[in-house]
Amino acid sequence: MNQIGCDKYTEHRQELIAAFKEVRQQTLNLTSTLSAEDMQIQSMPDASPTKWHMAHTSWFFEAFILAKFQSGFSWHDPMYHKLYNSYYNALGEPFSRAKRGMITRPSVDEIRDYRENINARMTTLLTECRDAQFKEIAPLLVIGLNHEQQHQELILTDIKHALFQNPTYPAVFPHDGARETQPDQRWLAVEGGEVSIGYAGDGFCFDNELPRHRVLLDDFEISNRLITNAEWLEFMQDGGYEKPLLWLSDGWAWKNENQAKAPFYWVHEDDEWQAFSLAGLRSIKPNEPVTHINYYEADAYARWTGCRLPTEQEWEHAATLLSAKDADEVLCLSQGLSQGLRWEWTSSAYLPYPGFCPAIGNVGEYNGKFMINQMILRGASGATQCGHSRFSYRNFFGPSARWQFSGVRLVRLD
Amino acid sequence: MNQIGCDKYTEHRQELIAAFKEVRQQTLNLTSTLSAEDMQIQSMPDASPTKWHMAHTSWFFEAFILAKFQSGFSWHDPMYHKLYNSYYNALGEPFSRAKRGMITRPSVDEIRDYRENINARMTTLLTECRDAQFKEIAPLLVIGLNHEQQHQELILTDIKHALFQNPTYPAVFPHDGARETQPDQRWLAVEGGEVSIGYAGDGFCFDNELPRHRVLLDDFEISNRLITNAEWLEFMQDGGYEKPLLWLSDGWAWKNENQAKAPFYWVHEDDEWQAFSLAGLRSIKPNEPVTHINYYEADAYARWTGCRLPTEQEWEHAATLLSAKDADEVLCLSQGLSQGLRWEWTSSAYLPYPGFCPAIGNVGEYNGKFMINQMILRGASGATQCGHSRFSYRNFFGPSARWQFSGVRLVRLD
Amino acid sequence: MNQIGCDKYTEHRQELIAAFKEVRQQTLNLTSTLSAEDMQIQSMPDASPTKWHMAHTSWFFEAFILAKFQSGFSWHDPMYHKLYNSYYNALGEPFSRAKRGMITRPSVDEIRDYRENINARMTTLLTECRDAQFKEIAPLLVIGLNHEQQHQELILTDIKHALFQNPTYPAVFPHDGARETQPDQRWLAVEGGEVSIGYAGDGFCFDNELPRHRVLLDDFEISNRLITNAEWLEFMQDGGYEKPLLWLSDGWAWKNENQAKAPFYWVHEDDEWQAFSLAGLRSIKPNEPVTHINYYEADAYARWTGCRLPTEQEWEHAATLLSAKDADEVLCLSQGLSQGLRWEWTSSAYLPYPGFCPAIGNVGEYNGKFMINQMILRGASGATQCGHSRFSYRNFFGPSARWQFSGVRLVRLD
Amino acid sequence: MNQIGCDKYTEHRQELIAAFKEVRQQTLNLTSTLSAEDMQIQSMPDASPTKWHMAHTSWFFEAFILAKFQSGFSWHDPMYHKLYNSYYNALGEPFSRAKRGMITRPSVDEIRDYRENINARMTTLLTECRDAQFKEIAPLLVIGLNHEQQHQELILTDIKHALFQNPTYPAVFPHDGARETQPDQRWLAVEGGEVSIGYAGDGFCFDNELPRHRVLLDDFEISNRLITNAEWLEFMQDGGYEKPLLWLSDGWAWKNENQAKAPFYWVHEDDEWQAFSLAGLRSIKPNEPVTHINYYEADAYARWTGCRLPTEQEWEHAATLLSAKDADEVLCLSQGLSQGLRWEWTSSAYLPYPGFCPAIGNVGEYNGKFMINQMILRGASGATQCGHSRFSYRNFFGPSARWQFSGVRLVRLD
Repeated sequence: MNQIGCDKYTEHRQELIAAFKEVRQQTLNLTSTLSAEDMQIQSMPDASPTKWHMAHTSWFFEAFILAKFQSGFSWHDPMYHKLYNSYYNALGEPFSRAKRGMITRPSVDEIRDYRENINARMTTLLTECRDAQFKEIAPLLVIGLNHEQQHQELILTDIKHALFQNPTYPAVFPHDGARETQPDQRWLAVEGGEVSIGYAGDGFCFDNELPRHRVLLDDFEISNRLITNAEWLEFMQDGGYEKPLLWLSDGWAWKNENQAKAPFYWVHEDDEWQAFSLAGLRSIKPNEPVTHINYYEADAYARWTGCRLPTEQEWEHAATLLSAKDADEVLCLSQGLSQGLRWEWTSSAYLPYPGFCPAIGNVGEYNGKFMINQMILRGASGATQCGHSRFSYRNFFGPSARWQFSGVRLVRLD
Repeated sequence: MNQIGCDKYTEHRQELIAAFKEVRQQTLNLTSTLSAEDMQIQSMPDASPTKWHMAHTSWFFEAFILAKFQSGFSWHDPMYHKLYNSYYNALGEPFSRAKRGMITRPSVDEIRDYRENINARMTTLLTECRDAQFKEIAPLLVIGLNHEQQHQELILTDIKHALFQNPTYPAVFPHDGARETQPDQRWLAVEGGEVSIGYAGDGFCFDNELPRHRVLLDDFEISNRLITNAEWLEFMQDGGYEKPLLWLSDGWAWKNENQAKAPFYWVHEDDEWQAFSLAGLRSIKPNEPVTHINYYEADAYARWTGCRLPTEQEWEHAATLLSAKDADEVLCLSQGLSQGLRWEWTSSAYLPYPGFCPAIGNVGEYNGKFMINQMILRGASGATQCGHSRFSYRNFFGPSARWQFSGVRLVRLD
Repeated sequence: MNQIGCDKYTEHRQELIAAFKEVRQQTLNLTSTLSAEDMQIQSMPDASPTKWHMAHTSWFFEAFILAKFQSGFSWHDPMYHKLYNSYYNALGEPFSRAKRGMITRPSVDEIRDYRENINARMTTLLTECRDAQFKEIAPLLVIGLNHEQQHQELILTDIKHALFQNPTYPAVFPHDGARETQPDQRWLAVEGGEVSIGYAGDGFCFDNELPRHRVLLDDFEISNRLITNAEWLEFMQDGGYEKPLLWLSDGWAWKNENQAKAPFYWVHEDDEWQAFSLAGLRSIKPNEPVTHINYYEADAYARWTGCRLPTEQEWEHAATLLSAKDADEVLCLSQGLSQGLRWEWTSSAYLPYPGFCPAIGNVGEYNGKFMINQMILRGASGATQCGHSRFSYRNFFGPSARWQFSGVRLVRLD
Repeated sequence: MNQIGCDKYTEHRQELIAAFKEVRQQTLNLTSTLSAEDMQIQSMPDASPTKWHMAHTSWFFEAFILAKFQSGFSWHDPMYHKLYNSYYNALGEPFSRAKRGMITRPSVDEIRDYRENINARMTTLLTECRDAQFKEIAPLLVIGLNHEQQHQELILTDIKHALFQNPTYPAVFPHDGARETQPDQRWLAVEGGEVSIGYAGDGFCFDNELPRHRVLLDDFEISNRLITNAEWLEFMQDGGYEKPLLWLSDGWAWKNENQAKAPFYWVHEDDEWQAFSLAGLRSIKPNEPVTHINYYEADAYARWTGCRLPTEQEWEHAATLLSAKDADEVLCLSQGLSQGLRWEWTSSAYLPYPGFCPAIGNVGEYNGKFMINQMILRGASGATQCGHSRFSYRNFFGPSARWQFSGVRLVRLD
């Protein structure tokens, strides 16, 4: 959908309806090998049950589009409106996040019915409404589809965390994310100066990618690839997790409290490090990008190397600039976007761009209210839906979050 | 099984095999209206998932009987031996109690398979073994059946708690426990003196009911019935939950921390008190026995009336004595046993009887190690399996536990 | 005071006034080597600042005697009435226990002034009141003195805990409790039968020691001495803290959570076990009674030996019986009372005696409301004030409490 | 000290020695009305005892200067080196921050002796060392003095929190911070463009104020004054604390968890809002700047007004620019620096400037390791030592911190 210019939505009604069907189907595809039990549980407050994601993404269309545009609208089930409102205070008090895993009724099957009901009503509305109305609906539809794609990634990260609770380490997919090996390390020189940051096209973007604005950057050199498992093992073997001077103060406290000594999902079994994946427990491949490390770990690692993490502006500028140049040079940086490797931690806090203005209406709660206590990640991961991310996309998580598919790319100190 | 004298187990092999089948079937019966999702979750650390109960009761037979007596034994799945060991340290480190709800694999269906596998192997063993071996197996079998009956009650109390998390208050059974109305209040005089306490027959009992021993009791008067909802409402309306002088110090702290102001499962909706049951949300019936109150509440209530709770010895003595007398007089006391009304809080701490000796072998961990921080409840409830309890039966829970079917019977102060 | 018969209080007015002065002075004596800083802090919620004890014991006389009997009474400072009410809900909402250490004003000096003010007003009242009034005052006075003696022991146990927080392990007293070596182990046979339990004399006792009543006891054999440090070291070396089958279930959980592996205050330094005392850090003396172990540890230790702890009735009966016999035989049992060695854990829960009736008036909250979740300790310790304890005295603490001067005496299994 | 150019330290040796004496004396002056008890306690983990501040600031000179430069150096007390190391891992494992209030020994008097000992040794060293050595010492000395001035402010903020625990609300100072009334509201237009940020002079600054660098700013309008109590009351009366849409998501959670409904230290008594100050409890003055609000509150307030908080770059640029202009126009902005009103929350996260390089040596842990989870405050407060702050000074606290003297200045949205 990103490719369709916002002012051309009405011209592309059929394409948008097709996209709706495809995105909705993709959610079911992702969950096809999960059991009702898998989809029920919430393995930590930050993660949500698969079931909940399936219902919440449907509720989004019901609450933001059908409730407003469908004639003779009534809620599929008024209780769902309560249960599946994630955090939109403007639409009533949301159900307690930490208790999502306690809702056994409706069942997974009833939620599948809910999805079908929404699909049917949405398809009818999208097909039958007049152009004038479609013009109003389209922007919300596109947000809804991007929203569902975000939840598709969360379905994967959250179910991975849930399945990890089983000491049998079950495999549910043939493979788990991009496992491409990394090329030799090279430093790519990027010229600074006054550059533009923020979404530039006429397609879809989130409100937090705007307004596009100018910033000053120094020249810098960024790595052509991500840090690998082999490099991370070196860090571990050099006592990286035991040297307080490498760590931020909060990071050191986090490390001690959680007794962290390796990336999340790493398990030392049979005399070697293995990692849990959605394809089960597997040996670490040295040349693949390290993943499931949090900001504190990424930052400590960078300090250990004598390098640093990029700012989000450096990252965006480098990605934009290099993608326009020789394809070879930017192999992994562009891969990070087009095919998905790892979300890359930046050293930037998640804050509003100068002149930021939340989206109008109830969707205004989507992004702005999380602009505190979070760090920016750029790029995309193997769990990101194809075409969902872009150079200006701002992902964000707290500095201790490890269950996302996050990795490290370095910038060289002068 | 209780009826069969322990020295006659071999004579009654067929009856015991039939009992095995019946008890095993009853667990399935109890869960027939539950979904896989219902059976997955653990709504608090004290409660366990239905699934877990189904597996654990099977594991009990596998670990204590098949592992010892079946020739060519191997575990159905070695991982189950780890996952479904509740607390028997002698059999290896038990899986963390608080994380039982996180185990999505095996699924409910796989656990049903496990049950069938155990049933088949047990039936073969029980049918084919020689008398000498049956003699060894029978006591463990009888413990195993009583154990499964205890878990049948826990399946009900735990699923009630789990379903209560759903704001829709789903109904899964046509009714919920005994709801018999209570007769008019009368005080039944019981003569004290030197009396015998503890199990007396030649059937089955748990180790904690032994040894039978003599104690001195004063004369006392015990109520012919349980406290009703109407009486509890009076207590509430008189500010019972707001008067610190009625409460034990720990009870008052519990009350404040939990902001308790009515029995558990009571919900004030539509301008009246209703109670959640396994049959859904229903109006309070004034003349039914109050239930789901903890020791602190029972004790505060008794102090408010100027009466007190019975000791476990008084309770057992009264039950024994009165059951031998005029049936009318003891209506509800005996009902408490034969048909099940409520587990009745006593003022006795759960401690070993003089000369207590834990059962020999690995089952020795069954009872003795819980003899601290718990209070005794006597009788039975509507959720107790028929014929499972007896006058000497000692149930026990911590003083703040409310999710069991517990009620109050008073003894008059002199 | 215990020695004066209750009906003779008025005859002994001068003695009681002298006792008042002596007890009040003793509190000051105990605190003479402590700094204002030492007396300020609260090192855990269960312990109170020295300062608070000094003020609270004064408040007790002000609130229960002066407020009622002094003509023209007014509070020394109305705020003190709020701050130093420990838990008497009948006298207003008590100040939060856990925040006692946050009250820096009044200062220690102001609390000393408060003590003097109370002393003066009490002395005047006690001296000048008529006999009829003295008769009313005397029982409260005697409770007040016993109350202050209890707090004198708590001053010692609490300051020991507070000073232990200093890594310098400061010494404030020349010695710390009774350190008498223990005689050779012998088993003293005690005949059971129907015996009387509870306070029998005509002096002072607490309400929880009454009513005196009859119980049935089996014959038993009790050790002539307490378990020593050397014996406890054997338990430790045999892996006592690592064997779950020795422990109550809650005890094992406590042990793991606190990573306990030796008695409280034991510190492994300079290649040996040392113990912190009010005289500083000192080597363990093998032949002294072990101290600062909780109920869980005492119970596990007993199980390890194949013996058990006495019930409180056995303890009281043995003490009474043996004290009347050959002095040699009962050396340490009577020492436990007359000179003070360790509070001895019994296997009895703290529950009301049959027919228990709390003291009349506001002091009724003194004992009864703590009759849950606590175990009985009998005897006395080196920190107990001389003459304060007696055979029928019921001390009580939760099963995880370790900061009292508690030890173990065993009873032999048949 | 800020005024002395770094390259001229040796020329100004006498001035620096005088500054040392003055700063050291000022710490004692601030604590002269506090009791030993006041100085002992730690009322929350974020605050430290006065005693600890007194010792820690002395330890700083001992550990960073005397240990390196004094010939024949030995620690005043090796234990102090352990107890008063705040967070310098390079110097050994720091004592647990949360337990600072448990250290009763050394006493306040012993810490005063420690201070005198350090003063004497430092004065001798500073007076007698050769110029070459003084050149090495001076930068550390100046950091030490700035460090002690920071702790002087913390002594005030922390003791305010400690004294607030007393329900008597004691007064220890004649007044509490700057209480100047605020002028009429005016918007001061500030021109943006490419501006320089970071310390520019040749005097002292902290490493986090460097390197000076260029940033792009839009034009903006900033208020000439701080938000007043009267304005905050309007926000409260308009339901500001009850409207989730005004708050950041984490802020709303903070608000609910803490049941916040007014600035910290505000107490509703005698039918009016009063505020606790170091001069006791006093009525709110409507025209004084609101204080003791955290980032969440400041941000919600700004959203309520339709304005926003300044970024730290805007603040610094405005302060620099306006201070060079008409004095009237910038009254309060410059007051914020020269006289001290409130620390002003900015919307900037505390992150390193481009090219940031931590100070060399052990003092390198001073600032950099806190660059996460904190927001920047600019300006100064009435509790800031005269001459300590400057335009480029970066103060920082977590978004929920309320115990600092923090206020709000707004920037107008376009």
